[in-house]
Amino acid sequence: MDEFMQAAIDEAKRGLAEGGIPIGSVLVHKGKIIGRGHNRRVQTGSPTLHGEMDALENAGRQPASVYRQSVIYTTLSPCAMCTGAILLYGIPKVVIGENQSFMGEEALLKSKGVEIEMINSDVCKKMMNNFIMAKPTLWNEDIGQ
Amino acid sequence: MDEFMQAAIDEAKRGLAEGGIPIGSVLVHKGKIIGRGHNRRVQTGSPTLHGEMDALENAGRQPASVYRQSVIYTTLSPCAMCTGAILLYGIPKVVIGENQSFMGEEALLKSKGVEIEMINSDVCKKMMNNFIMAKPTLWNEDIGQ
Repeated sequence: MDEFMQAAIDEAKRGLAEGGIPIGSVLVHKGKIIGRGHNRRVQTGSPTLHGEMDALENAGRQPASVYRQSVIYTTLSPCAMCTGAILLYGIPKVVIGENQSFMGEEALLKSKGVEIEMINSDVCKKMMNNFIMAKPTLWNEDIGQ
Repeated sequence: MDEFMQAAIDEAKRGLAEGGIPIGSVLVHKGKIIGRGHNRRVQTGSPTLHGEMDALENAGRQPASVYRQSVIYTTLSPCAMCTGAILLYGIPKVVIGENQSFMGEEALLKSKGVEIEMINSDVCKKMMNNFIMAKPTLWNEDIGQ
């Protein structure tokens, strides 16, 4: 497993251990993690801190030039909100753990020129499948359903 | 001025008084404000808390049914990230103060069936124009430029 996807998975597992939704993300600039995070809906009552948003938040304020040389890793295909954040900041590449338990806005990302690398990770799929089966109401809340 | 747009403007002014970027927003459910917020980039070092995101955050966790009966008011045309959040949660209507100092993703919102009401407020335009002229670097950071 790529070290950065592994770091995103570790974040997802941390979220699960906290009683949260197991989705993790890291923002990587020139080969170094500058922000890591995981979904905080349960932990802080946040409707905006999805994994990717939490990684961006924890990276703090960055100039546009940093985002434009960064890659964001996420264990799950990014939803409309996280996709919008990626587009706002011009992050050119997204590495995704899986998109079978949830298909995000990959088509929109591609249409705007963002490169997508799909890992298709069994670890990520199993983690999400187990979570969605265990807590379907919480999961639906997280995706606005 | 509509009372809810006035509340969003009041939030923007609060942000300005704190030394921040003057963009405010309120989330209104069945005629009642359930979340209000303003851009927090300067105040908390946040790259994710735009005005709309802060209003959503302060509304806390809500079921999908609440979002789908809500209207979000924002002093400025929503960027890609805030647009994505609106789409994620299925908020059916956005009332916008102005889009002359910044044109957000209104076309995407419309293409997804979101109703847009444009106030074209001189108060909002003047507030943003003054801010952008005074702090162009900070403004560019906020829109990923």
